[in-house]
Amino acid sequence: MKARIKITLKNGVLDPQGKAISHTLESLGFDGINDVRQGKYIEVSIAETDPEKADAEIKKMCEDLLANTVIENYSYELEEI
Amino acid sequence: MKARIKITLKNGVLDPQGKAISHTLESLGFDGINDVRQGKYIEVSIAETDPEKADAEIKKMCEDLLANTVIENYSYELEEI
Repeated sequence: MKARIKITLKNGVLDPQGKAISHTLESLGFDGINDVRQGKYIEVSIAETDPEKADAEIKKMCEDLLANTVIENYSYELEEI
Repeated sequence: MKARIKITLKNGVLDPQGKAISHTLESLGFDGINDVRQGKYIEVSIAETDPEKADAEIKKMCEDLLANTVIENYSYELEEI
């Protein structure tokens, strides 16, 4: 199965990279930008085909390695491939 | 409106960061990992409320700054906030 994982900074955590993107967009002439937040996107393909087991495995990957749960949130979608 | 933008490397483009994650997951004891690809995830909130204009604006942001379209693909979803 394939997991599409989105990792984002929690609200209130400073995001200098997002601010840099926001300023650059403004300097390129884009108006009306309220906010930009940068996160990570990770696709993981695993051999596990049972949806429940795959869900548990991906959740553990996020908790153990992919996301820093002190400052980051994660969400994911699983799909069969 | 708010755009949730996913930027991924095109197929065939080497992804050393994805490989590093894959190896680290294996060393942590996760089995059956077929592939890992790392991309970027960016949330942009804009003042524009017209869906068509917002779509055009976000597309231009992706083409002009956010994605390197030589080696990266991008996709996005727009939602009202």
